[in-house]
Amino acid sequence: MKTDILREVQIIKIGGNVIDDEQELKSFLSKLSRSKVQFILVHGGGKLATQFASKLGIPQELIQGRRVTNAETLRIATMVYAGLINKQIVALLQAFGKDAIGLSGADLNCIRAVKRSGREIDYGFVGDLDSTSVFTEKFDILLQAGMTPVVCAITHDGKGQLLNTNADTIASSLAVAMSRHFRVQLNFCFEKKGVMKDVNDSASVIRSLNLSEYQSLKHEPFIQGGMLPKLENAFDAIGKGVESVFIGHSSEIEQMMSNMNYHGTVITA
Amino acid sequence: MKTDILREVQIIKIGGNVIDDEQELKSFLSKLSRSKVQFILVHGGGKLATQFASKLGIPQELIQGRRVTNAETLRIATMVYAGLINKQIVALLQAFGKDAIGLSGADLNCIRAVKRSGREIDYGFVGDLDSTSVFTEKFDILLQAGMTPVVCAITHDGKGQLLNTNADTIASSLAVAMSRHFRVQLNFCFEKKGVMKDVNDSASVIRSLNLSEYQSLKHEPFIQGGMLPKLENAFDAIGKGVESVFIGHSSEIEQMMSNMNYHGTVITA
Repeated sequence: MKTDILREVQIIKIGGNVIDDEQELKSFLSKLSRSKVQFILVHGGGKLATQFASKLGIPQELIQGRRVTNAETLRIATMVYAGLINKQIVALLQAFGKDAIGLSGADLNCIRAVKRSGREIDYGFVGDLDSTSVFTEKFDILLQAGMTPVVCAITHDGKGQLLNTNADTIASSLAVAMSRHFRVQLNFCFEKKGVMKDVNDSASVIRSLNLSEYQSLKHEPFIQGGMLPKLENAFDAIGKGVESVFIGHSSEIEQMMSNMNYHGTVITA
Repeated sequence: MKTDILREVQIIKIGGNVIDDEQELKSFLSKLSRSKVQFILVHGGGKLATQFASKLGIPQELIQGRRVTNAETLRIATMVYAGLINKQIVALLQAFGKDAIGLSGADLNCIRAVKRSGREIDYGFVGDLDSTSVFTEKFDILLQAGMTPVVCAITHDGKGQLLNTNADTIASSLAVAMSRHFRVQLNFCFEKKGVMKDVNDSASVIRSLNLSEYQSLKHEPFIQGGMLPKLENAFDAIGKGVESVFIGHSSEIEQMMSNMNYHGTVITA
């Protein structure tokens, strides 16, 4: 079992709304860089990829409301996630004194995915992760050298094909894999204060949630929206070795990482 | 002085024409990945960045025939060089068994540049390198871990600003900096067989060139074209500690690296 002698690493997922706002992103990275605890940052793409695709006249295919990653869309995603956003984040973290290194899953073969098979719907170049996808040794080498990995939502299949993978899924798979060797806290940072019973009432944040509480609440309308996959992901991570999952506002990143004066949601077993 | 106990590293610059051709690029990377010698690959951007800028309707500013990197052009360059091309190369090298890791100069702060001052002409977000720009220790850590760095032509100023830097200059600065601790061979791979007296006559390749030979030839028309900056770069590197510089066709990469059955140009002191 894990003991105090295990090193600690925190996995932080930063969502699209923060990435889209230059000042918010700077403020977030500035706070994050004060962390004394080692961390791996995982970022999504925000609206930039969609904006570029639209400017370039690349049609966005939707099947049953879900986006299809065709070859052109994958190129845009690779440019925006692994290029523009990743390098801007890395350059800012370096300016704030963190020795950041940007990674896609292809770099160091650190996250290998399997192209989703088109049983009923062909989602295109989308990569799914399994329990063997994350090569924790690679992250360990970088962390031991004092480096701060910054991971974008592009993976590969090991055969030369890049793939688009959901950033929340990368964050929780990474957290689960790292928990085999580290004490791991997983933090989902976004533009809300946490899991809220009423999105218009900031006092309605559920401050802590364990599995049995969640099971009694999970059919409530406030969870059935976009929060459901995040919470399923969170409890999955908890069930597989992650110590705790924090869901909260990006401006509270320091309070989240230290769990001091934090006002968002904490998920535990 | 350097002795045999120093480790060897080769710096390889691959030019735009190879990058633009998917089959050529695959073939090149497949050969390169057979190398037993450790190497760092530096790549330019080919025509893709210009194509995207034109599709997006971003005007390309030219002052006295030289391109200006305005903010929009820098975004495109970052997306294409650090995103699309870098990750495609990394994914292919991984498929061929090399543990590649893509880097911009911002990653690990490995190459820090200085924004070119606009004395007479403001070239925009262009970064120049000096003798302190390359942090060799970072490359050393990666090489010691058996990793293969793949460097794109984007650098940073250390204060959060990304910059566009010429890939030939990155390759030679990297070679010079690494030569303080390694035996270094620098290889410029492109679509020609080497330095040629007559570009239409493949038998006209100058097989070897030292500084005094170069000085007697440098005003010849066949050198005064695009070859001049490459050769100035090459002799500069030789003068600063690089053992040899090879200029040749990308299809000869294996012969170039081993200097066996090689038909291109070798530059020595």
